[in-house]
Amino acid sequence: MTEFYDRLEESFRSSFEPPSPPDGKMQPWTETEIVGKPLPRVDAFERVSGKAEYTYDVILPDMVYAAILRCPHAHAMVKSIDTSAAERMPGVVAVLTDKSAGADIQWYGGGYGGGPMQSRLFDPHCRYEGEEVAAVAAQTPYQAWDALKAIKIEYEVLPFVIDQDEAAKPDAPRLFDAGNATGKPMPNERGSVEKGFAEADFVLEETFSTSAQMHAALESHGSVVKWDGDKITIWDSTQGVYDACMLSFARTMKMPYNNVRVICRYVGGAFGAKLELGKYTVIAALLARKAARPVKLMLSREEEMLCVGNRAVARMTVKAGVKKDGTLTALELKHVYTPGAYSGMAFVGFIFQELYKCPNVKVTDSGFYTNVGRSRAFRAPGFPTGAWALEQMMDMLAEKIGMDPVELRLKNFTDVSQSRKQPYSSAGLKDCLIEGAKKFGWQEAKAGKKDNDHIIRGVGMAAGLWMMGSGGPPYTAEVRMFADGGVTIKTGAMDLGTGTKTAACMVAAEELGVPLENIRIINADTAITPYASSSGGSMTLASLVPAVRQGAWIVKRQITDWAAESLGVTADDLEFNKDAFASRSNPAKRRTLEQIFRAKNVMDVIGIGNREPNPANKVVMPFSAQFAEVEVNTKTGEVRVIRMVGADESGRVVNLKTYENQVYGGMLQGLGYGLIEKRVMDRQTGKMCNANLHDYKVPTALDVPVDHEVVTVDLKDNECNNVGCKGLGEPCHVPTAAALANAVYNAIGVRPVNSPIDNRTILDLLSNRKRG
Amino acid sequence: MTEFYDRLEESFRSSFEPPSPPDGKMQPWTETEIVGKPLPRVDAFERVSGKAEYTYDVILPDMVYAAILRCPHAHAMVKSIDTSAAERMPGVVAVLTDKSAGADIQWYGGGYGGGPMQSRLFDPHCRYEGEEVAAVAAQTPYQAWDALKAIKIEYEVLPFVIDQDEAAKPDAPRLFDAGNATGKPMPNERGSVEKGFAEADFVLEETFSTSAQMHAALESHGSVVKWDGDKITIWDSTQGVYDACMLSFARTMKMPYNNVRVICRYVGGAFGAKLELGKYTVIAALLARKAARPVKLMLSREEEMLCVGNRAVARMTVKAGVKKDGTLTALELKHVYTPGAYSGMAFVGFIFQELYKCPNVKVTDSGFYTNVGRSRAFRAPGFPTGAWALEQMMDMLAEKIGMDPVELRLKNFTDVSQSRKQPYSSAGLKDCLIEGAKKFGWQEAKAGKKDNDHIIRGVGMAAGLWMMGSGGPPYTAEVRMFADGGVTIKTGAMDLGTGTKTAACMVAAEELGVPLENIRIINADTAITPYASSSGGSMTLASLVPAVRQGAWIVKRQITDWAAESLGVTADDLEFNKDAFASRSNPAKRRTLEQIFRAKNVMDVIGIGNREPNPANKVVMPFSAQFAEVEVNTKTGEVRVIRMVGADESGRVVNLKTYENQVYGGMLQGLGYGLIEKRVMDRQTGKMCNANLHDYKVPTALDVPVDHEVVTVDLKDNECNNVGCKGLGEPCHVPTAAALANAVYNAIGVRPVNSPIDNRTILDLLSNRKRG
Repeated sequence: MTEFYDRLEESFRSSFEPPSPPDGKMQPWTETEIVGKPLPRVDAFERVSGKAEYTYDVILPDMVYAAILRCPHAHAMVKSIDTSAAERMPGVVAVLTDKSAGADIQWYGGGYGGGPMQSRLFDPHCRYEGEEVAAVAAQTPYQAWDALKAIKIEYEVLPFVIDQDEAAKPDAPRLFDAGNATGKPMPNERGSVEKGFAEADFVLEETFSTSAQMHAALESHGSVVKWDGDKITIWDSTQGVYDACMLSFARTMKMPYNNVRVICRYVGGAFGAKLELGKYTVIAALLARKAARPVKLMLSREEEMLCVGNRAVARMTVKAGVKKDGTLTALELKHVYTPGAYSGMAFVGFIFQELYKCPNVKVTDSGFYTNVGRSRAFRAPGFPTGAWALEQMMDMLAEKIGMDPVELRLKNFTDVSQSRKQPYSSAGLKDCLIEGAKKFGWQEAKAGKKDNDHIIRGVGMAAGLWMMGSGGPPYTAEVRMFADGGVTIKTGAMDLGTGTKTAACMVAAEELGVPLENIRIINADTAITPYASSSGGSMTLASLVPAVRQGAWIVKRQITDWAAESLGVTADDLEFNKDAFASRSNPAKRRTLEQIFRAKNVMDVIGIGNREPNPANKVVMPFSAQFAEVEVNTKTGEVRVIRMVGADESGRVVNLKTYENQVYGGMLQGLGYGLIEKRVMDRQTGKMCNANLHDYKVPTALDVPVDHEVVTVDLKDNECNNVGCKGLGEPCHVPTAAALANAVYNAIGVRPVNSPIDNRTILDLLSNRKRG
Repeated sequence: MTEFYDRLEESFRSSFEPPSPPDGKMQPWTETEIVGKPLPRVDAFERVSGKAEYTYDVILPDMVYAAILRCPHAHAMVKSIDTSAAERMPGVVAVLTDKSAGADIQWYGGGYGGGPMQSRLFDPHCRYEGEEVAAVAAQTPYQAWDALKAIKIEYEVLPFVIDQDEAAKPDAPRLFDAGNATGKPMPNERGSVEKGFAEADFVLEETFSTSAQMHAALESHGSVVKWDGDKITIWDSTQGVYDACMLSFARTMKMPYNNVRVICRYVGGAFGAKLELGKYTVIAALLARKAARPVKLMLSREEEMLCVGNRAVARMTVKAGVKKDGTLTALELKHVYTPGAYSGMAFVGFIFQELYKCPNVKVTDSGFYTNVGRSRAFRAPGFPTGAWALEQMMDMLAEKIGMDPVELRLKNFTDVSQSRKQPYSSAGLKDCLIEGAKKFGWQEAKAGKKDNDHIIRGVGMAAGLWMMGSGGPPYTAEVRMFADGGVTIKTGAMDLGTGTKTAACMVAAEELGVPLENIRIINADTAITPYASSSGGSMTLASLVPAVRQGAWIVKRQITDWAAESLGVTADDLEFNKDAFASRSNPAKRRTLEQIFRAKNVMDVIGIGNREPNPANKVVMPFSAQFAEVEVNTKTGEVRVIRMVGADESGRVVNLKTYENQVYGGMLQGLGYGLIEKRVMDRQTGKMCNANLHDYKVPTALDVPVDHEVVTVDLKDNECNNVGCKGLGEPCHVPTAAALANAVYNAIGVRPVNSPIDNRTILDLLSNRKRG
């Protein structure tokens, strides 16, 4: 017994020293064992079995259901609200209106870039069909919906405007006192386009337009909220538990950050529409406080279509100058932007300023508010729109000077950022163009163009880039290793379905030298996981995995130092293999992880990894080029995409499987943008005609090209970050619609300047074409 | 728009640098603003409102309930088990026996110190009433209990032994093939007691005994388990999510640590009985795997009493030598230990070896297994038992030489650890004796002793210490601060009801200089919180809060460096006040936390605090002295405790309120041990007679002394750890029973050598006493 307690007490005087910060510096990986492989997702079982808990799945004891009463008019003023009947409806536990919400609730959600903000929770001036007017919580969703109908609203219906040209007129119905313009047109010019046009051998001009595309994520927006005294827990379908939800909610409700816990372990798609705090979240929280019960508030598909975003309608007039040898001399874009009833997000001009070497570029944005649901960030906001115009214009120039479209783009390739005047850390556009063309068989396909009765084939291509794919700090990841080699990663990062969690696990396994099955990951819970910025802008992977690698490296470095100390060798002499360290010079000198941890009397070692800053003198961007072959049915107007090749330079491939899936998904959503998807507004009522997934068509399995392939370009970019990866989700979506438009032009000889190129568009174009 | 995305992108090239490790060293606190105050618990609302989720409260979808069939005999061999009828009972989803559990399930739970381990999950050789034989899971607890009755067991009932003297006999029924002895008696001698007795003026000898005390925690033992593929989540009522549960379970089931998640946010008492993995946890896990459903298995009060621990029965023969001037010359203890059917934990001899300066000490432990439920660690295992003998003997010596008992103890006070030959970091026994005596009014109380008819008053005192109150590494805490000054602490530490969480929050608030309400704490979840050793041995506070302070210090140091850099001053020149830093030399130079975080583009700063090693050349122990006044009713034998003073030196007081509550609780449980609590075994059957809270009495509100006070002794121990605190939960419980025995002796003049001193004992003593 005495011995036993001696030993017991001795353990309190152990040799353990707090981990000292490791010396040395991480080196770029040369060869990798796990990273780069095509691996299934670590959460695949949860996702396919239904065990994954999405916000929609959260059910809490005593929970009630909320619903929002929305303005049925395109433009109206609420004159009075009578909720007395609704309050007496069966099951109703709380009713909320502008009056009862309180004027001091300043919603920090909607609107970008300084335009009019949708800041009042229930604004009596309703500017679009679907704007929030009141809300109800009841025992069942059905009771809540029924109660909405019992709320009596007196509206003053106002004249509306849904068209940008109408909105521009001086006598148009006004959305705001200051008028309908989104701001003063602010030209941004580099060099002199006038000079550039003068130097050109040819100057072409064309006007392009794109329709509003809906995000149409599988899981609708919504929140479940639960108060505990002055603290709240929010399960939200969001792209960012921190920035998008926690911070904005705390600001809206004037609460300390620490009192707001946001959880979102799984998201059923987002595409940019879930980058901001929802009004529904604030409404749910206020109802929950009134009812003193947890509240669930998930939007219906119709509400999704009307109220939580879309890709803005755009009209782009492009003027371009080119020399006979293909040198671009000037690019000018006049962009008219139609964000809907409040300010949206779209960077349409950037691709003109950045994609090609061109000394003279001028971009002028102007825009007008209309009585339509506000646009939001949408997968590479503005870039597929800008590419639609720029990349068709590039093909027009190529045709004009009799040059191959790929050659023209290579002619104007640059490895220096045109807008920043700094070199790229890696400039993959050239390789995307060449390797993509090779894989597609561009030369052969172009030459082999042939008609088959009323089915005409055509090929086309386009290029793109994305401005934010570098990712960057702040971004923190925690890596913790147990004595038996088990590892847990904690990160605030979202996994929007893109495979982020799997990539993080692979990077940790690679750095630590342990099998992938040793790694667990806990993500997206503000109480538990460290800060991560929202998942958007293709920034997640390139922000997260370098932080994970750093955390893992700190852990490994610490353990290696302990192993070296205990074996009497230098750390550099040690090699780690799965669960043990051995000396390279004397393999008999060996310590297992268990032995090392036990000797130090340590159960777990924690490394806090921070995302290091991006290189100061380089610009980090990912690049993409896509090639498509289409068949146009001249009788029906149908366009079928036969095959596509997507070539992407997004740095190191972390998981080949999810990388390829991203490109497939990006191309398919681009196919929808280019050929299928279109919000239809009723000019008589200002209401949306197709606010459902029956009338609003998204691509389905039958639209997927039978043959679609991915080319990965890896230029061993060791400067962008310690893993060498860049963002992919957006660049792989940028060129698609334009490539398809070019292919259609190649088939039918008439340029489809307006998207989408649906059957009616093709038939219209064909009826107007002059056969060459 | 252009400006906007410039700004957006610029933020990715922010000035953020990963936190560099702070320089400098933490200094001991001189004055504190929060630490030391009597503050209510941070989780008080959850606890009193019923919102706190104890294991008993966990209800999972699809969960089934398990129950264990236990041997009804004191000693028996299971010959056969027939579960066929039970399997057909309504609601039954799984049945488990020795056969179906599998022989390779080696339970790593019960037993200490190398004695026979209770390692087989269902051992056919049942050695006590209550040993596990089979288990059932069913839709409801009632169905499970019913099904147990349908299991047919054929037992061979064996002769039993429940008494240590009987067990020692050569022909006694044998629990183990090797016999009933717990091991060879191993004498441990310092100096020479023979020489010491020879030097003494007086040598006294007496034999003392103590009864088995039950832990009787409010929340019974139990687990809720849920498998997800090869991973399991266990909600367990435990003293350690890591050591006690996760590690032992992983070892038992041969699983990676990472696949076992253990959660225990609240515990309804433990007192040492929940320091090991329960067989019920393993049984629940196996049933859950069989049933493919979550399983809840909570023990009944009767099972608590029979199967999950008690404070071992002890017999102690003490021989002591003293000089006329009070100098102790020798102490000898012969301890016969009766741990029950398997090995237990009790350090009875240590207090003899350590408490007083004495060159010659000999301790001999021997023991015998009996057919009774195994003892476990119980609040200062062995110490109140040892004190019962030692501290009564000290009073006997004092009486013999005519010296005041307090004076005798002070005479033999030492500031050097007798067993380790190293000085204490602080030696508070002297101050506890003096300050306690002052507060109690010892001189006056002793002199004022008076009879009031059949009610006789007496006063007594005793001293104690505890061997593990230093705490120590490994112990990790994570401190995370938000830009608005909100702080989250994460720790694997348990809060057994002692206020650990509150103390951790106070220490973080003190170090960071933010209000206490800014701090949240998340504890005891192995997937989320860093490693902490089990909460036992009074090690939690002194292990945890230094780690918390270090984590907070790292965070503050980082932010201070940033503030200094941005203000162009040195860190030493900066003063933090609630939410802003200002220069001492130029108060106009000022930065709020928000400004500092924003300038660095940082949302949260994380500090990983590690518990530093204990001092190498010092011994860290807490000390205690207690004083009691009792009234003995010579007609009924009732002893009423009129008042008590507990004087403790446990280093710095972190929270005065929970400190005092610990001492009150320690004294009250000691009152139970000394006066009330006793396991009663039936000599006819070997079964426990009072396995319920009706027949087994614990102290209740009416037993609390009307007047009880706490004296805090703080010797500004800056060496024990960076906060200067030591353990308290156990030392404050060590002297109580002995102090009450001395008070009873003082009242009635007959020494109550056997505990508890219940009415019958008093009447027996009185009937034997010779009036002096």
